[in-house]
Amino acid sequence: MTPPTPKIRLFVPDRLTAAARVALSRGQAHYLGHVMRLDVGDGVLLFNGRDGEWSAEVETVKKNQCQVAVLRQVRGQAAEEGPWLAFAPIKKAGTDLIVEKATELGASWLCPVFTRNTNAARVNRDRFRARAIEAAEQCQRLTVPEVAEPVTLRELTDGWPKQRRLLVLDETGAGAPIAVVLKGLRSDERDATQPCGFLSGPEGGFDASELDALRKLDFVTTVGLGPRVLRAETATLSALACWQALIGAAR
Amino acid sequence: MTPPTPKIRLFVPDRLTAAARVALSRGQAHYLGHVMRLDVGDGVLLFNGRDGEWSAEVETVKKNQCQVAVLRQVRGQAAEEGPWLAFAPIKKAGTDLIVEKATELGASWLCPVFTRNTNAARVNRDRFRARAIEAAEQCQRLTVPEVAEPVTLRELTDGWPKQRRLLVLDETGAGAPIAVVLKGLRSDERDATQPCGFLSGPEGGFDASELDALRKLDFVTTVGLGPRVLRAETATLSALACWQALIGAAR
Repeated sequence: MTPPTPKIRLFVPDRLTAAARVALSRGQAHYLGHVMRLDVGDGVLLFNGRDGEWSAEVETVKKNQCQVAVLRQVRGQAAEEGPWLAFAPIKKAGTDLIVEKATELGASWLCPVFTRNTNAARVNRDRFRARAIEAAEQCQRLTVPEVAEPVTLRELTDGWPKQRRLLVLDETGAGAPIAVVLKGLRSDERDATQPCGFLSGPEGGFDASELDALRKLDFVTTVGLGPRVLRAETATLSALACWQALIGAAR
Repeated sequence: MTPPTPKIRLFVPDRLTAAARVALSRGQAHYLGHVMRLDVGDGVLLFNGRDGEWSAEVETVKKNQCQVAVLRQVRGQAAEEGPWLAFAPIKKAGTDLIVEKATELGASWLCPVFTRNTNAARVNRDRFRARAIEAAEQCQRLTVPEVAEPVTLRELTDGWPKQRRLLVLDETGAGAPIAVVLKGLRSDERDATQPCGFLSGPEGGFDASELDALRKLDFVTTVGLGPRVLRAETATLSALACWQALIGAAR
């Protein structure tokens, strides 16, 4: 009889090879020992974004300390070329939701952007990263999206790679329907191999001057998400869900 | 000079006609008077799901009491034939998110469904309804989705109208890609005039026997949402976002 597949998945920074020993973080050790009550010999899954997914076995578990022995690779590393997401930070719960759901929906790069109507004065990258790791562990990804240093809108567009299309979620309703734009990308050979990015605005929306400037950029397409006024986080997740259904699933 | 358009939108049960007087609820009166600090003569927008959207003016505002005078219709009532959504209740925050976002994304009927792995023993319909009203007020809808009496999965399928397609969000990955299924619906004349419904499962997923039984029903199509394991609320919102982009936007 084969033992049941271990269900707990943990992201670790360490290199993963057969017979390697990995010392888990205090938080992970607490989670395994106290929350999940794992014991010596119990199995977990590990991934690091580079070496695929590995089964491992608890060797020692004490108060906030846990060492696991890496056993064998269960999935090889695969490229996970999801879309980029630049987003204006909104209220805490909404931003956390964006980071968590964007990870589930396959985004590969998350970049907080300060726009004119953005209320948040600063962001906590460590919290975003912890949220992204937790979501990646849960949704079976083999990578964790990179959480970039926050930038201003001007810095974002100045540094944007010109061959990557940037779909701006335009809450004024003036943008092209998202399904039409995504289908257009898919039929364009160059764009299909070069994933796109999305930009979502703050609670108050983009300033009219920001939208004007964005529309003048060659690599920008403004897109609309239907007749209703969506909250910032709803618009962001809708766009990523459409990307998965229309581009991600077609790969 | 025309006065600025009032921004506060309120759902009221009352009939809306020119020169009607509407006594707002205690909660609405508190919100207008204490939170938003509106005064006599300030404007609001009202809708009731039947008579379109009307501008109105505060006539009296006291401690938890507020009467407004209905002025004129600013939008006629329009049919908002969104998809139905049957969903297994999950943890409180997740279920609240489903109700709020489903309203924003255009669902017209919300039905809690108890499945084998559903942990919630009961649901609070009043809370769901309050959430749906708040989201409808915010997203400029002219209707509030109906929140149905909770049912068992068997009751749902027994009572389901056979000509309405039920797309079951199948977390096992065995379902057809959602974009393919939605495009198929759109090209089918009968289905296009008869909006579909979605069914999403609980945190633990559908039981294998439930999926087997669902797959045997003529009106059911199981659909997949990509390679990652989505949380129940993420799957639900993704499906509705795809519906809006592929069916709703094409109407």
